[in-house]
Amino acid sequence: MLSVLPVAGLPEVVAGAPLAELIAERCELRAGDVVVVTQKVVSKAEGRVVAIDPDDEQAKLRLALSEAVRVLRRRGELVITETRHGFVCANSGVDLSNVAEGYAVLLPVDPDRSARRLRDRLRALSGVEVAVVVTDTFGRAWRRGVTDVAIGVAGVAAVADLRGAPDALGRTLMATVVAVADEVAAAADLVMGKAAGIPAAIVRGIDPGFLRSSSVAGEIVRPPAEDLFR
Amino acid sequence: MLSVLPVAGLPEVVAGAPLAELIAERCELRAGDVVVVTQKVVSKAEGRVVAIDPDDEQAKLRLALSEAVRVLRRRGELVITETRHGFVCANSGVDLSNVAEGYAVLLPVDPDRSARRLRDRLRALSGVEVAVVVTDTFGRAWRRGVTDVAIGVAGVAAVADLRGAPDALGRTLMATVVAVADEVAAAADLVMGKAAGIPAAIVRGIDPGFLRSSSVAGEIVRPPAEDLFR
Repeated sequence: MLSVLPVAGLPEVVAGAPLAELIAERCELRAGDVVVVTQKVVSKAEGRVVAIDPDDEQAKLRLALSEAVRVLRRRGELVITETRHGFVCANSGVDLSNVAEGYAVLLPVDPDRSARRLRDRLRALSGVEVAVVVTDTFGRAWRRGVTDVAIGVAGVAAVADLRGAPDALGRTLMATVVAVADEVAAAADLVMGKAAGIPAAIVRGIDPGFLRSSSVAGEIVRPPAEDLFR
Repeated sequence: MLSVLPVAGLPEVVAGAPLAELIAERCELRAGDVVVVTQKVVSKAEGRVVAIDPDDEQAKLRLALSEAVRVLRRRGELVITETRHGFVCANSGVDLSNVAEGYAVLLPVDPDRSARRLRDRLRALSGVEVAVVVTDTFGRAWRRGVTDVAIGVAGVAAVADLRGAPDALGRTLMATVVAVADEVAAAADLVMGKAAGIPAAIVRGIDPGFLRSSSVAGEIVRPPAEDLFR
């Protein structure tokens, strides 16, 4: 059985805020827990917030373009871009919701590193081994609606490679590399909610086989050369 | 808190198998539960299984093309197609894993209808209102790894439209339509596992606001005209 528990009651996070402490104070972590934290609070704690002129309608677009290495599509003021990290998402992940008027939140410079640092601190505070997933909310091609996905991980598999494992009938499974961290991110979003302002959750009871050193940059970001859609 | 419970011990499902009975016998359903079932067993119960020559390497490709209305990309024997349902996925969802040698499983003809029928039967058997999500495992553009997504729903929102709801700072959230059913599918996959052969799970504790009449065809499938990637 898997449990997904919201971490409620976090105060508004500002630059330099001790995010690990704020989380650890509000829950009792157990070994094997996956602590899921939204990009928004990670970026705020890391000071990845910039001023933006709220009366300048082009300002967000310019900011998104400045955070991009490539523009895949554009429709009006929406751009689908590739970020420096290799993420393909709307507006390079630049976000004006849940931030004070006149400011925009950028993605962390290195979300895997953010996850590792948070994990180290949580381990020091709680005395138990936990994993961390940093999430953001991305749209998808071909399907309506956004879902939360992993942009950084520490201590949990970004993907689990089940290729070569036999299926239930003893036949070899082909091409089954499961994006475990993205599924963890999606599960956590079900208790966080965009409007509720709950930026962290604990996923408890994950298959211990998934708990290992990993990174989103190394395992989930698909290099353009192997990508059929770039 | 959300709980995700695997429904273990289902026998191999054959055409005409009473899937709702097999599930209801193995768990104690509560009102508000979302019963998640993989496409594989739904298709098998519905007889959506065809013979395929295991020595003919092109047979799977031909079958995938016969189930497609459009081919988006092709690389060797992998085709990314649009199915009659409007799903964009590998090989039109035709699957040779977890099925006897010499057979292939096709997607249900109408997965929302499959979900509704299963829900009606589960309600009759258990006496409580439950929701149903039928899932399949799809790849994504730009990101490595597959995740489970919803291909049919009954009694639970395919998407939750949070546009217009204020964020935690009282500002209006723009363009936040969350694919709740896809997040439920992903959460359930974490306890099912491709290799474990567990084809059903219960997601308990979902926001009651998400429990409503809905369909994947009507709410998640993105019409080509509004799609930037087709």
